[in-house]
Amino acid sequence: MISNQDFNLSCPIPIQKYPYILLAHGGGGKLMRQLIDQMFLPIFGEPNQVEHDAATLKLNGNKIAFTTDSYVVNPLFFPGGDIGSMAVHGTVNDLAMAGARPLYLSVSFILEEGLPLQTLWEIIISMKKAADQAQVKIVTGDTKVVDKGKGDGIFINTSGIGMIEHHLTINPLSVQPGDAVIINGDLGRHGIAIMAVREGLEFETTIESDSAPVADEVLKLLEAGIEIHCLRDLTRGGLASTLNEIAIGAHVEIEIQETAIPVLEEVKGACEILGFDPLYVANEGRFAVFVPQKDIEKTLSILQAKIPEACLIGFVKKTSTPLVTMESSIGAKRIIDMLSGEQLPRIC
Amino acid sequence: MISNQDFNLSCPIPIQKYPYILLAHGGGGKLMRQLIDQMFLPIFGEPNQVEHDAATLKLNGNKIAFTTDSYVVNPLFFPGGDIGSMAVHGTVNDLAMAGARPLYLSVSFILEEGLPLQTLWEIIISMKKAADQAQVKIVTGDTKVVDKGKGDGIFINTSGIGMIEHHLTINPLSVQPGDAVIINGDLGRHGIAIMAVREGLEFETTIESDSAPVADEVLKLLEAGIEIHCLRDLTRGGLASTLNEIAIGAHVEIEIQETAIPVLEEVKGACEILGFDPLYVANEGRFAVFVPQKDIEKTLSILQAKIPEACLIGFVKKTSTPLVTMESSIGAKRIIDMLSGEQLPRIC
Repeated sequence: MISNQDFNLSCPIPIQKYPYILLAHGGGGKLMRQLIDQMFLPIFGEPNQVEHDAATLKLNGNKIAFTTDSYVVNPLFFPGGDIGSMAVHGTVNDLAMAGARPLYLSVSFILEEGLPLQTLWEIIISMKKAADQAQVKIVTGDTKVVDKGKGDGIFINTSGIGMIEHHLTINPLSVQPGDAVIINGDLGRHGIAIMAVREGLEFETTIESDSAPVADEVLKLLEAGIEIHCLRDLTRGGLASTLNEIAIGAHVEIEIQETAIPVLEEVKGACEILGFDPLYVANEGRFAVFVPQKDIEKTLSILQAKIPEACLIGFVKKTSTPLVTMESSIGAKRIIDMLSGEQLPRIC
Repeated sequence: MISNQDFNLSCPIPIQKYPYILLAHGGGGKLMRQLIDQMFLPIFGEPNQVEHDAATLKLNGNKIAFTTDSYVVNPLFFPGGDIGSMAVHGTVNDLAMAGARPLYLSVSFILEEGLPLQTLWEIIISMKKAADQAQVKIVTGDTKVVDKGKGDGIFINTSGIGMIEHHLTINPLSVQPGDAVIINGDLGRHGIAIMAVREGLEFETTIESDSAPVADEVLKLLEAGIEIHCLRDLTRGGLASTLNEIAIGAHVEIEIQETAIPVLEEVKGACEILGFDPLYVANEGRFAVFVPQKDIEKTLSILQAKIPEACLIGFVKKTSTPLVTMESSIGAKRIIDMLSGEQLPRIC
């Protein structure tokens, strides 16, 4: 912990070059990493802290996970979900990524003056249904109202507490060369569902967000005795950014196969129209799990029971420089970088 | 818990009469109570739940407190504090009001595109100093960015976890006729400090916000064996609204003495200029504690060691109708109602 005397009041990021917050600072890519690495972690972090979707805390002999997320998605309602259900799923999933059993959520609303009460009511109902489905209780809350033009209808924060009942160390430092990389379903639906509404795109079949709680699957993997090395949800920045973060944290190469990555035809088509790469599109019910090769079959069978598209997409390799590579259908290999700039603002 | 089938999709508050969210819905007064009582509690609450600043949860034999608050104060910096220090104090104090030892905080930022990075940096430093002072750790976080014109510089959510180490039931149901009502210092400085900046008022001496952590005092009261019946911070809606909530929860009359209530001369003057009543002005480092008469002296001596203005302001009485009354300096008695409408928007 830094003592009170040590603070330098000049911003450590050169403000001549980056004077203001940009949308990309919230995009899950390189600018967001700069904020975290140069501003948040030096002040709030502990030495040698391993970054995670949730903090792991010891409380009188219990190990709990604690996490927070604010949701600013626009539009508030979209095919397959709304800001309320997402605010439950996202935080439940962050707890699950620590291998924790989600138990309790808080909810805090920032409402804009002029929001219809009926809209708020529908969002509350949606949160309750999502919480019941994920078997968590919403136990405490708060409401603030800001003047018209100083918010955007409704922003929601949920924070969550979960119980960690396993003895694994689930984080990038546990990732080993040889580990398999498995994802729990097809990619890109959440981001494309949101963009389709925003851009007024129509497809033959409506693309629905993948927003869903995943704690149940994770707990089943743990109960089956699978030696999970790392778990990470594929939200902002998509699969590409997530794998890059893990490659850097574990100091490994992650090699994935392009042909193995499941993306719906409609999502592929929409990505082409919109100029997006599905590897970078945000998901809200998808995660990557790193397991030793011995556990591949068991992992796939548990995940495919929920979503048939769950699959093995690649392996971890030794490297001198951490990176993510992808082999294409014709055998060409290219580097998959972290998201740079902002692809899809306000997706979550 | 309500089952999935039971939800009525029509808003229970008549939307012909109240179609939209107003600033007053966030003001801590009657409209906010309507939201809580008619929308939030029926959906998220448990039967016979006692409302509190923090939820009390059991986790494998441990009793913990869990709370959340979003901060939307305007301006971001004011005499005696800023949105960052307040976001720590407020949540630490909500934990303290459950008699809990604050341990861990989460922090989630909603940044508006265009916020100067230097401003964010100063707020982070301020949060860190406040957390060190309150002996809590900020252990997990999140950052979202919204487009320019869809936020207001920065909104902060903090959620907190504290450990409950006592065996008292600290809530309005424990309040008894005969209990003493003690407050820990002078009233009204936070709200007036904010309004003075907004309105460009200048006084001979600058009025500083009372924003401060109070967990230390509360833990000292508990360590001294004081039989605390209820604790409540005097934030939105001020002393008047807080006492009304407790009077209703405990089904008692609370009678306070006008002459006993400490308000700085400058604050009184500012209230006259601005047309405010100090009883309704928000504080961020003040609370009311209800104790049996045997504990009055000990309570005062502990609280006055920190703030000399801490004092006894009244007593609890039996009643058929819950209410708060105040005896004036000339012996006249009047009813002190809950805040109606909005006195000071975006004070916290």
